[in-house]
Amino acid sequence: MLLPAVCIVWQTAMIILFGVFIRYNEEADTHWVEHRHTKNISSDIENDFYYRYPSFQDVHVMIFVGFGFLMTFLKRYSFGAVGFNFLIAAFGLQWALLMQGWFHSLDYTDGKIKIGVENMINADFCVAGCLIAYGAVLGKVSAVQLLVMTLFGVTLFAVEEYIILNVIHARDAGGSMVIHTFGAYYGLSISWMLYRPNLDQSDRLHGSVYHSDVFAMIGTLFLWMFWPSFNSAITDHGDGQHRAAINTYLALAATVLTTVAISSLFQKHGKLDMVHIQNATLAGGVAVGTAAEFMLMPYGALIVGFCCGIISTLGYVYLSPFMEKYLKIQDTCGIHNLHAMPGVIGGIVGAITAASATESVYGVEGLINTFDFKEDFKDMVPSRQGGHQAAGLCVALCFAVGGGIAVGCILRLPIWGDPADDNCFDDETYWEVRKHSLQQ
Amino acid sequence: MLLPAVCIVWQTAMIILFGVFIRYNEEADTHWVEHRHTKNISSDIENDFYYRYPSFQDVHVMIFVGFGFLMTFLKRYSFGAVGFNFLIAAFGLQWALLMQGWFHSLDYTDGKIKIGVENMINADFCVAGCLIAYGAVLGKVSAVQLLVMTLFGVTLFAVEEYIILNVIHARDAGGSMVIHTFGAYYGLSISWMLYRPNLDQSDRLHGSVYHSDVFAMIGTLFLWMFWPSFNSAITDHGDGQHRAAINTYLALAATVLTTVAISSLFQKHGKLDMVHIQNATLAGGVAVGTAAEFMLMPYGALIVGFCCGIISTLGYVYLSPFMEKYLKIQDTCGIHNLHAMPGVIGGIVGAITAASATESVYGVEGLINTFDFKEDFKDMVPSRQGGHQAAGLCVALCFAVGGGIAVGCILRLPIWGDPADDNCFDDETYWEVRKHSLQQ
Amino acid sequence: MLLPAVCIVWQTAMIILFGVFIRYNEEADTHWVEHRHTKNISSDIENDFYYRYPSFQDVHVMIFVGFGFLMTFLKRYSFGAVGFNFLIAAFGLQWALLMQGWFHSLDYTDGKIKIGVENMINADFCVAGCLIAYGAVLGKVSAVQLLVMTLFGVTLFAVEEYIILNVIHARDAGGSMVIHTFGAYYGLSISWMLYRPNLDQSDRLHGSVYHSDVFAMIGTLFLWMFWPSFNSAITDHGDGQHRAAINTYLALAATVLTTVAISSLFQKHGKLDMVHIQNATLAGGVAVGTAAEFMLMPYGALIVGFCCGIISTLGYVYLSPFMEKYLKIQDTCGIHNLHAMPGVIGGIVGAITAASATESVYGVEGLINTFDFKEDFKDMVPSRQGGHQAAGLCVALCFAVGGGIAVGCILRLPIWGDPADDNCFDDETYWEVRKHSLQQ
Repeated sequence: MLLPAVCIVWQTAMIILFGVFIRYNEEADTHWVEHRHTKNISSDIENDFYYRYPSFQDVHVMIFVGFGFLMTFLKRYSFGAVGFNFLIAAFGLQWALLMQGWFHSLDYTDGKIKIGVENMINADFCVAGCLIAYGAVLGKVSAVQLLVMTLFGVTLFAVEEYIILNVIHARDAGGSMVIHTFGAYYGLSISWMLYRPNLDQSDRLHGSVYHSDVFAMIGTLFLWMFWPSFNSAITDHGDGQHRAAINTYLALAATVLTTVAISSLFQKHGKLDMVHIQNATLAGGVAVGTAAEFMLMPYGALIVGFCCGIISTLGYVYLSPFMEKYLKIQDTCGIHNLHAMPGVIGGIVGAITAASATESVYGVEGLINTFDFKEDFKDMVPSRQGGHQAAGLCVALCFAVGGGIAVGCILRLPIWGDPADDNCFDDETYWEVRKHSLQQ
Repeated sequence: MLLPAVCIVWQTAMIILFGVFIRYNEEADTHWVEHRHTKNISSDIENDFYYRYPSFQDVHVMIFVGFGFLMTFLKRYSFGAVGFNFLIAAFGLQWALLMQGWFHSLDYTDGKIKIGVENMINADFCVAGCLIAYGAVLGKVSAVQLLVMTLFGVTLFAVEEYIILNVIHARDAGGSMVIHTFGAYYGLSISWMLYRPNLDQSDRLHGSVYHSDVFAMIGTLFLWMFWPSFNSAITDHGDGQHRAAINTYLALAATVLTTVAISSLFQKHGKLDMVHIQNATLAGGVAVGTAAEFMLMPYGALIVGFCCGIISTLGYVYLSPFMEKYLKIQDTCGIHNLHAMPGVIGGIVGAITAASATESVYGVEGLINTFDFKEDFKDMVPSRQGGHQAAGLCVALCFAVGGGIAVGCILRLPIWGDPADDNCFDDETYWEVRKHSLQQ
Repeated sequence: MLLPAVCIVWQTAMIILFGVFIRYNEEADTHWVEHRHTKNISSDIENDFYYRYPSFQDVHVMIFVGFGFLMTFLKRYSFGAVGFNFLIAAFGLQWALLMQGWFHSLDYTDGKIKIGVENMINADFCVAGCLIAYGAVLGKVSAVQLLVMTLFGVTLFAVEEYIILNVIHARDAGGSMVIHTFGAYYGLSISWMLYRPNLDQSDRLHGSVYHSDVFAMIGTLFLWMFWPSFNSAITDHGDGQHRAAINTYLALAATVLTTVAISSLFQKHGKLDMVHIQNATLAGGVAVGTAAEFMLMPYGALIVGFCCGIISTLGYVYLSPFMEKYLKIQDTCGIHNLHAMPGVIGGIVGAITAASATESVYGVEGLINTFDFKEDFKDMVPSRQGGHQAAGLCVALCFAVGGGIAVGCILRLPIWGDPADDNCFDDETYWEVRKHSLQQ
């Protein structure tokens, strides 16, 4: 009875809060035609919708099909993977529109949050952080726990994002710090708090079957293909979006080759492991997130991708078993390898790239536009920006670990209906699975 | 021999009719460059292609992957689901270009239909109506019957659409009335006419297996994710498309939460049912179709989604078994719950939203643009528009039920090669299924 | 050890070459803002990114999900299909950016290749040629052989493309000649060189299972749906892209009907064969590639699609067994039917359509723009253009067959770790397949 109650009550709360706070912004409102005349905008095509909507849809696919299917690899947890992912993303994006709206889109003249396509993208981004965290606890928590995790995750996300982007004035277009570092350490901290010493990690349910691995590749590929849209979705119009897409495209391509190399090198008989191909191939997209909009240069993007493919795959081979055995962190999807390490690398790459920016490479106007050295920050210089970037990374880490431990405490309360150890990784705990359906 | 003959003859007819009637419109013709100069259009980016093509591609995915895979849930009818869906959509879109073209895009100077990207979207929309109808009879009809159903379905659609949009001047951007209400009741009427009293609805073939449920989620998610594009694809440039996308995005999010709530509440042990998650989560997109382009307000969209998740899921729990037992309507995919009821609700929501439109909310120009109070309808007022919307809904219902019964009569003729009761829901009836392939 | 070495060394070489040669073009560089002022470009929306990025993403999906999943139909080679496709595409696109860049995007002032979104699309196109070739040898070669095939394939592609498009001045927007004819005959020639007389073509591994056929339909549908984007991705802004999309949309629709007709006609009991539905339905997109940007007219597109559905399906029924038995060409995916024949037809259709172009149909400016009768070719006339198109087709064929035989010789060296006959079509040769995972 808890799940229906939470869904109905929270959704009702959303309706009330939306009623009080949320309206269309001037580009989505019927007054757009008057706004166009006032601002002397020549054409409807200048509406931000046409700059960002294709990217939004790609990001949307990453959130629901990408994350959802990536987690279907377990032999008997595909319903939970794709279904709970669906549920928490649908809730999270509403809560994110409110939380992020209060920080970024509040119109002080009438106290309303004005939303448009960019808010939808940001809400999807915010949700991404929580879905990453889901990867660490996949199969070990109930739907209600996931909803609680998402409620607090989105809240923490909105605050750290505001501090990193607005207070510290770090740039983070693709969210290496804000999304991936935060989401991954948030999830890992929760998983640490929820440690199950007697969990059956045998092949009985913890492994994959042939077709579940193919389903997971659907998730992998949609994440991989649309990552250029993810990293460019909210960058500056024009060259900003263009460059971010190119950098991400290249970083991801390089990651595939080094992932294959390391996977083959460290398996017996040189065989490839689907776990690596499904996950580590994406690390380059994570790591190029912050710097994607900078003049990272095509070869710079390749170098980032090259390194992350190696590090991420090695993480699956060595670090995940180590973390489980010695640090008591059970990380079902290996998000430490896919999001945490590449996210931190991305933050560092961003800091270095920013610190080494020069007017000769960027041009005078280009430097100002790219790093937004305007208004309060018009005296900023690249080297100091590099420091701010590094500070942003620290903020993301603190919020993630601190928030994760606090939320983990809440999730340990014995009221959430979490599964017994023997029922982990098993859809039958929460889903109607038809008789005989498992024998095909 | 009937199927090959129908395919070849009808496709040949299409070629002849296209040869006589269909040409490119001025935006797709090589004379575009001259047209630009004449009309003083400043840039190629003003070509409607750039406003609508990304939405078109999303709609296209919904038609072929969305509808196709949503129906793969049956354990042994995945080929028929995705394959026949493919066939009838490919035929239907050609016939729709002609039928809709005669009503909407006929150039009276030369008697030709001039097509562009908007015609392609509308053709896909028209096909959607027939694919919805397919959901009611899935597994119980032959490919030829489906083609006949599509031929008449598209024809009826084009006429009711013309009456609703042009004669009655109702607005229906996302097609709650024109597409969903029509398509669903058309299919249900046909299914009623084709009632099979001795149909084996046991689990032998009528149920799903684990992986077929995961395949169906591919369909669900692509429909869910791209629905904002569906509802905004042919709305006004600028704020119209922008607002329709936002409203749909929000309505669908709310639907997911209430669907989960009701599914869990009405199953024993509080477990979730994949049938509900696959289908009822989409009801919000259907119900917000008509009003998506209006100033429904974000909270309004959430309310619509909230209600439809509940109603649609309850429909699966109570109404579908009732309809089968007492009304003799066998509805394989439950389209009554996913399209019919939400479609009618969408029509009503549209009528109410239109009737309550005011100049203070829309602005003077905004009101005229949104409701197209121009030319013949320049004296229209919102309250009367609300009445016209309601009239539109009635027209859709009449065409659907009347047309469905008539077409159902035709489909009962013993010449179409429909399967025996024992061969329903079985791909082996119409597809070469390799030996041993079922045992994996 | 060979695979890791090749991946690491080649990826390192890419980084070095990118460091030396590749930079952002003026639309992706931070100097865009200055470039805008210099060139008097009124708005960021004029950046080529907004004209082409949605098409790029669609093409990207075709390359990775489309080609990858289309080849998952074999019962035990889905990992290899989607995984090796992923690997060679990720490598190939980097090498293609360099090879095509030297020919087309070299800035002679500083010796750098300047890349933007169009280069990314062209790199994906180039990769498509190699993925087509993979279809012929699917299941019979090692990953290293595929990488070697891709290295040479991309190199040959870039040269033949330069000769066809720039030297001969043929037009080939959708690559019927440059991509499909080349890729298919390149792969077939290699397969001929690698002929395995004792290959077990029995159903044990060579066939499909029920769910692998459904997975393959994911590939089919994403190729089919996004083909209009493929053929219009690099055509002229405005009417060029618009018309190419319409023509492809129509050709593909017609192909579906004739494929179904022929499949049913030539199977016993009139049943449909998934192999035909998965493959031959795409032939229309291939065949309309060259002429898609011309004034082919909607009925012309339908005729092309009509014929190719028939020819391609008949190819699967009669030609593939014949080629294997008498010509010693083992073509796993039947690329001769899907790409080779339709590609040649596409080249011929392009030549005829170009030769019959007139000013009355195209308009004076339209004719010049469409066929690029400018600069060195300002005296070109349509009839001669037709001859050049035909010459282009011959060049593609020569490069494909010549290059394929040469590369085939290289691939016969006994150093590449290709599988024994008994291990063909089996993922266990190259992938870690978990115990018991095959029994579900």
